[in-house]
Amino acid sequence: MFALKNKLAAEFIGTFWLVLGGCGSAVLAAAFPELGIGFVGVSLAFGLTVLTMAYAIGHISGCHLNPAVSLGLLVGGRFPAKELIPYVIAQVLGGIAGAAVLYLIASGKAGFVAGGFASNGFDALSPGGFSLTAVLVCEIVMTFMFLLIILGATDSRAPAGFAPIAIGLGLTLIHLISIPVSNTSVNPARSLAVALFADTAALSQVWLFWVAPLIGAALAGVAYKCLVCSLKAN
Amino acid sequence: MFALKNKLAAEFIGTFWLVLGGCGSAVLAAAFPELGIGFVGVSLAFGLTVLTMAYAIGHISGCHLNPAVSLGLLVGGRFPAKELIPYVIAQVLGGIAGAAVLYLIASGKAGFVAGGFASNGFDALSPGGFSLTAVLVCEIVMTFMFLLIILGATDSRAPAGFAPIAIGLGLTLIHLISIPVSNTSVNPARSLAVALFADTAALSQVWLFWVAPLIGAALAGVAYKCLVCSLKAN
Amino acid sequence: MFALKNKLAAEFIGTFWLVLGGCGSAVLAAAFPELGIGFVGVSLAFGLTVLTMAYAIGHISGCHLNPAVSLGLLVGGRFPAKELIPYVIAQVLGGIAGAAVLYLIASGKAGFVAGGFASNGFDALSPGGFSLTAVLVCEIVMTFMFLLIILGATDSRAPAGFAPIAIGLGLTLIHLISIPVSNTSVNPARSLAVALFADTAALSQVWLFWVAPLIGAALAGVAYKCLVCSLKAN
Amino acid sequence: MFALKNKLAAEFIGTFWLVLGGCGSAVLAAAFPELGIGFVGVSLAFGLTVLTMAYAIGHISGCHLNPAVSLGLLVGGRFPAKELIPYVIAQVLGGIAGAAVLYLIASGKAGFVAGGFASNGFDALSPGGFSLTAVLVCEIVMTFMFLLIILGATDSRAPAGFAPIAIGLGLTLIHLISIPVSNTSVNPARSLAVALFADTAALSQVWLFWVAPLIGAALAGVAYKCLVCSLKAN
Repeated sequence: MFALKNKLAAEFIGTFWLVLGGCGSAVLAAAFPELGIGFVGVSLAFGLTVLTMAYAIGHISGCHLNPAVSLGLLVGGRFPAKELIPYVIAQVLGGIAGAAVLYLIASGKAGFVAGGFASNGFDALSPGGFSLTAVLVCEIVMTFMFLLIILGATDSRAPAGFAPIAIGLGLTLIHLISIPVSNTSVNPARSLAVALFADTAALSQVWLFWVAPLIGAALAGVAYKCLVCSLKAN
Repeated sequence: MFALKNKLAAEFIGTFWLVLGGCGSAVLAAAFPELGIGFVGVSLAFGLTVLTMAYAIGHISGCHLNPAVSLGLLVGGRFPAKELIPYVIAQVLGGIAGAAVLYLIASGKAGFVAGGFASNGFDALSPGGFSLTAVLVCEIVMTFMFLLIILGATDSRAPAGFAPIAIGLGLTLIHLISIPVSNTSVNPARSLAVALFADTAALSQVWLFWVAPLIGAALAGVAYKCLVCSLKAN
Repeated sequence: MFALKNKLAAEFIGTFWLVLGGCGSAVLAAAFPELGIGFVGVSLAFGLTVLTMAYAIGHISGCHLNPAVSLGLLVGGRFPAKELIPYVIAQVLGGIAGAAVLYLIASGKAGFVAGGFASNGFDALSPGGFSLTAVLVCEIVMTFMFLLIILGATDSRAPAGFAPIAIGLGLTLIHLISIPVSNTSVNPARSLAVALFADTAALSQVWLFWVAPLIGAALAGVAYKCLVCSLKAN
Repeated sequence: MFALKNKLAAEFIGTFWLVLGGCGSAVLAAAFPELGIGFVGVSLAFGLTVLTMAYAIGHISGCHLNPAVSLGLLVGGRFPAKELIPYVIAQVLGGIAGAAVLYLIASGKAGFVAGGFASNGFDALSPGGFSLTAVLVCEIVMTFMFLLIILGATDSRAPAGFAPIAIGLGLTLIHLISIPVSNTSVNPARSLAVALFADTAALSQVWLFWVAPLIGAALAGVAYKCLVCSLKAN
């Protein structure tokens, strides 16, 4: 068992990597002429930040990297309430550090403009112009399913050791579906971090990317408990 | 051992995810200008819905998410006949729910038209204009191989814990091959669900995507039993 | 331990799948307008045919699906000489069956022409116009490395259960590198199977795709034995 | 336990494969007309060279394939100092051999010019024209995170057997982010090897791709020790 300070350092580094790697692939490589990685590459990159960190620091902090994940695990009975706030603070700070390093690298190119800087949004700030309602539904449902994957794959009845693959590639899947809708958040720390650096009004829409993922995650915590409840009931 | 109601809830959620995630990636992200995910991204998305759910709910319901899979496992001697109909109903309802949520999200964009809505078809409704015979052969063979992968990878002689990877990426492979032919079904619940929302005549062709996958799956159940039969014969 | 007839049936089906899936993705989906899967998708497809079959039938036949693999394993001391010829025959027949079913499906589209039909070649028949020498070197080296991956990943000292991932994704990697050079063979059965259906002179060049992979595989069998030989010497 | 000569032979072959496979995919297949693999394919290829070799030779040499990895493991207390120089020499020689074979194959096409030959660089030699500072920061941070993934995933507290997946796909992720910046090195042996064959001034910039990865790796060795230090302190 690690001390809280070690766990928080791990969460800081992991969320740093999620934002630097996921948003970095979007900012630096998605639209590179001819050879760019597109949404498939960005989806892979987000998922692989989680897959790699889950194997690297999962044994230290559980590798949440996301306030919604911490909340969902708490509701699902897998995470102590007293660690929630410290975890969220570490995640937010790590995310901001990741966005700052990304800004430093990205600005090392002549003619750089931050633009959306991989931030999330609805209406005019949605990549495909999706409405607030569509984005809200999408983020709630995607986070709900993300937490269900996390709660199920880390269940003691699931095969041991494979959870980072399921969870990481689950985040890839969520991006494959929903980048056009909201630029995909399912993670309040990631949304806030890059919104601070965007040239757009992204910061004014960040509230949705705290509200929706937290709702979806909390609902999933309840839902998973129901899904496996008959074990005791019957 | 979980109660039937828990298994059905898991199948409902899993098939919901398969349709929302797989067909959602196709409807929302495949043809996004410049950065769209194309058939590679859609193939990955379909496979990852199964991979993620197999780790998340495999220990609850076995994670069939597909009437053809349930039938193939029944014929292969791995699934009790009395649960077939309840499983199929849960899968169909889950699939329809997934398509409905996808419709809700997709329609939140100005100028939305459902079009094919990721439905399956032959002749004019085949992405590449393939004939009924080609589609029939393709769907039978692809489902046959899908079930062979499932039956083999979940065999007690195969390495434990890896089946979700083999099965999920097997579905990705099947899509990499056959999206141009039939838009890839191998799953009657998935085909019915989106056909209900399509603007095309997809519903009139849904019969083929029940008949072909069920034939292919049943044949695979028999074939796998033959493939491992010498253990007792010799 | 399975009977030889079961092993041969498994090799037949597995090589059927390798050719239908790998070459099928190339013929049907690679160049689909706008959304086609390109060489990345074809590379993934070839690798996933092996990954899926290795989990599905690896416990039956070892899942060689390739005369060069059988030879390399024989030279490396992992496969009995008396089963070599039966395995190769089953692989060749399975590959031809896969190419035939692919032809049946592909020809169900108006205006179909077989063209190269995913066959391998050099000079004018190389996708990028590479010379006989380049193709020869490439196929020898790629098959050498493929067998080294197989021999290493199935070594009893390597982590158990992961070999299908290493080997399948190894074949994906080999395709990512060498499709432009030779259309990637490293597998005599695959090359012969589709050459029989090509409209081009592919059949006249098939000799190279037997000679080069078999040389590379045999060399790898010797090399891997050297690589681990000090265990006894020291 | 293998003899040093066996370990060095394994490192030679592994680094040969990393350069031939990773840089080979870039030189031969990245920009193939219409169907080319782009940066996504190159990223996958680099990662898969490590994933495949880690399963194939990890049990022989630990599969470093990279002087920065050897240094980082040494600083992290996982690798004996006396083997560092021999490992680095084997890696450099293996990388050069890989680049030579790649040159042999690539030059078998009419009109071949080496050009950058997948070398790394800054300013005019950066794919996206990034400055020396941006490239320096990027390479330090990317190598730092690469080593953190390696140290964490091979920690005895992490799930056994999965490290090659985390590490290989970690290298894929690093390429998805940073190819546009520096063409991605994080590996001095890889950078030197291809710079020797480039038509450009790549060799004059190779110093950065030794300095930055070695700094990043050494820092990660220290950081990981801190990250897990409370176990004893508390």
